[in-house]
Order: sequence, then C-alpha cells, then structure tokens
Amino acid sequence: MGGRTGGRARAESETGGRRRADAERNSAAIITAATDLFARDPDASMTDIARAAGVGRVTLYAHFSSREDVIRAVLRQVIDQSTEILEGARSAEEPPADAFAHLIRTAWPLIGRFGRLYNAARRTLPAEEVRQLHDPPMAHVRELILQGRETGVFRTDLPVEWLVSTVYALLHAAMEEVSARRFDQVEAGEALVQTLLGALRAD
Amino acid sequence: MGGRTGGRARAESETGGRRRADAERNSAAIITAATDLFARDPDASMTDIARAAGVGRVTLYAHFSSREDVIRAVLRQVIDQSTEILEGARSAEEPPADAFAHLIRTAWPLIGRFGRLYNAARRTLPAEEVRQLHDPPMAHVRELILQGRETGVFRTDLPVEWLVSTVYALLHAAMEEVSARRFDQVEAGEALVQTLLGALRAD
Repeated sequence: MGGRTGGRARAESETGGRRRADAERNSAAIITAATDLFARDPDASMTDIARAAGVGRVTLYAHFSSREDVIRAVLRQVIDQSTEILEGARSAEEPPADAFAHLIRTAWPLIGRFGRLYNAARRTLPAEEVRQLHDPPMAHVRELILQGRETGVFRTDLPVEWLVSTVYALLHAAMEEVSARRFDQVEAGEALVQTLLGALRAD
Repeated sequence: MGGRTGGRARAESETGGRRRADAERNSAAIITAATDLFARDPDASMTDIARAAGVGRVTLYAHFSSREDVIRAVLRQVIDQSTEILEGARSAEEPPADAFAHLIRTAWPLIGRFGRLYNAARRTLPAEEVRQLHDPPMAHVRELILQGRETGVFRTDLPVEWLVSTVYALLHAAMEEVSARRFDQVEAGEALVQTLLGALRAD
C-alpha cells in the first residue's frame, strides 16, 4: 500500500476503511434492532425495521434487499449465538443425560424468547432452509444423543436423526408456547428438559 | 313453496337449487384437487389450483377470494377428517397408553402425507390460527392424556396443555420428516408413537 501509491492512495484507503466500518456498524445495528423487533412482532415490516434501527429506508435497502434477507440474517445471528453457548456449555465429565439437560438449560434463556422470530422465519423462508440454518447447534445435540446411546441411557430403537428432530421440534414448541403466553419462560424451559429426557431415555 | 307461488317460482327455486348444488360440487372439487396439490407442492399458486381442479380462474375466485382462503379450507377439511377418524378409533375398553398408541396409529395413514400442506399453512396463515384449527382433534388427545394421568401411566409433573403441545409438535415434526423424504411414512408413524409414549409416561 505504501511506496509509489503515496499519501492519496493511503487517504483513499482510509476513507474506504472508514466507509466499510460504518457499513458494518449499520448492518450490525439493523440486525440487533430487527432481532428485538421480531422477538415482539413477527409481522414487522421493512419500515418498522428501519425505524427501530434508526436508519433510513435507503440505508436499510442498501444492506438488505428484502424483509426475507433481514429475517435470514437475524435468525442466523441468533442461531450462531446459541451455537457458541452450546459449545461453551459442553463438559466431557458429566454423564450424557446430565450433559444434555445442562445444554438445554444453558441455551434456553437466550433462545426461549424467540418464538415470534421463529414464526416470522417459518412464514418467510422455506421450512427446509429454516431447518438447515439450525444444523450447527443440532450437531451438538446429535453428538450428545450418540454419547447417551453408547452409555445406555438414551434409546437406540429409533434413528438418531429422528431423535434430533424431536429435540428440534419440542424446543420450538416450547418457544411458541412462551410467545403465545401459554407458558412462563422459566417453566417452559424446565418442562422442555423433562419431556426430552422422557422421550430420549432407554427403557 | 307450492300453492300460490305456482310453477314459475318452483322452476326458479329448482334452478337456484341446481346452481347451489353446482356451486357446492365446484367448491368440493377445488378443495379435493387443492388437497392433493398442496400435499405435493406447498408453493402451488391459484393458477395451479384452478388447473388441477379443472375450473377457470373466474370460477376459482368466485369460491375462494385468495390462496390463503383455499389453504384454510383444505387444512380445515383434512383436520375434520382426522377428527372423525379419531372419534371412530376411540375405545373405552383399552388401557389409556394402548388407546393413545391406537389413536395415533389410526390417524397417521391419513395425516402423515400432509407435511407439505402443513408447511404451506404455516407460511400463509398466522401460527396461532393454524394451531386453533387443530383444537378439535387435540381435544381427543387431551382427554386420553387426562385418562392416562388418572390411571397413573402418564406423567403428572407437567401441565396437560404442554403435553398436548408435545403431541402436536411431534406429530407435525414426523409429517415434515416424511415430506422432506428423510423418513419413510410407515417408520415415521411408529417412531412417533414410541417417542410420544416415552415423553408421556410416568416414571
């Protein structure tokens, strides 16, 4: 960058860098505002998102070409965060059933409040895309189920992929119960753990 | 209708009756065709529906003002049929856990193939409306769970409404596994029964 290109190129590069940094800040602010918004209102529009993020519609559309794109980015970020939590919560020392319960209890405070976001995603993106976005956290669930099968505490009479789908389905069912206010978030998390342990355990 | 109104009124009434009968036949034909269509393609359009039903778009729109209306009518009919099957499958003599397994096994051959329709409904109607349309069949599930709790075979540590939601969620999870071709329909039905018995049973 230095040498022959001199000061002007460096100044341009710095301007470019600042612009990129601004753009990233805007994009992050939009995703953060949209995450809170969709947790309250699954029908939030692009106008609502722009207002919540404190940006104009032109800026919003410069970052995300459609409402679908915003929902995809928000869902991806929430799932990335929950995957990090799951990675941090893993412990090789606990027996698999305890480790599994610990995993759900650790992730639940973050994800339990996103039933409305999940509904917005289900209404906007194809079901299979929503499911595939969950592959990284579900890989951790799958691994714990396999460990529980090896030690004889989890059932082996059903395909592991179906047991992963069971966890996925009940996790989202609990989120929807909370978002429909049929269930308190703390109680829902514990009911989820107890129901999953029942569904997974060996006879 | 007879007496003073005479032959002309009767003829008009008969014409009206024929028209109504034609309209009902058309409506039924549209719902039947749309049911098969959505079981294959959750993104089917109004044009696709008209073509599959063998009616023009004008006739289709005379019966259903939007794609959303068609999906609602189709979902309602599939749910009505499954509720009838559940009512027919009930037996007071079986122990509750067996009666519950029997209920799921009886309903599954009808409903198991409708994962794509459920996805279409989830993408089109609000999640709470889709859930409320399921209230009649879920009332039967609820009653069997309560009976199983009374006789001590089903768990009492969790709210019955959550256990009903568990059944609802896993039923639809199994339907989605079949529609995504991750699971054979017959195997999915049996996995569903075994998973639900595990999730519901008392310790």
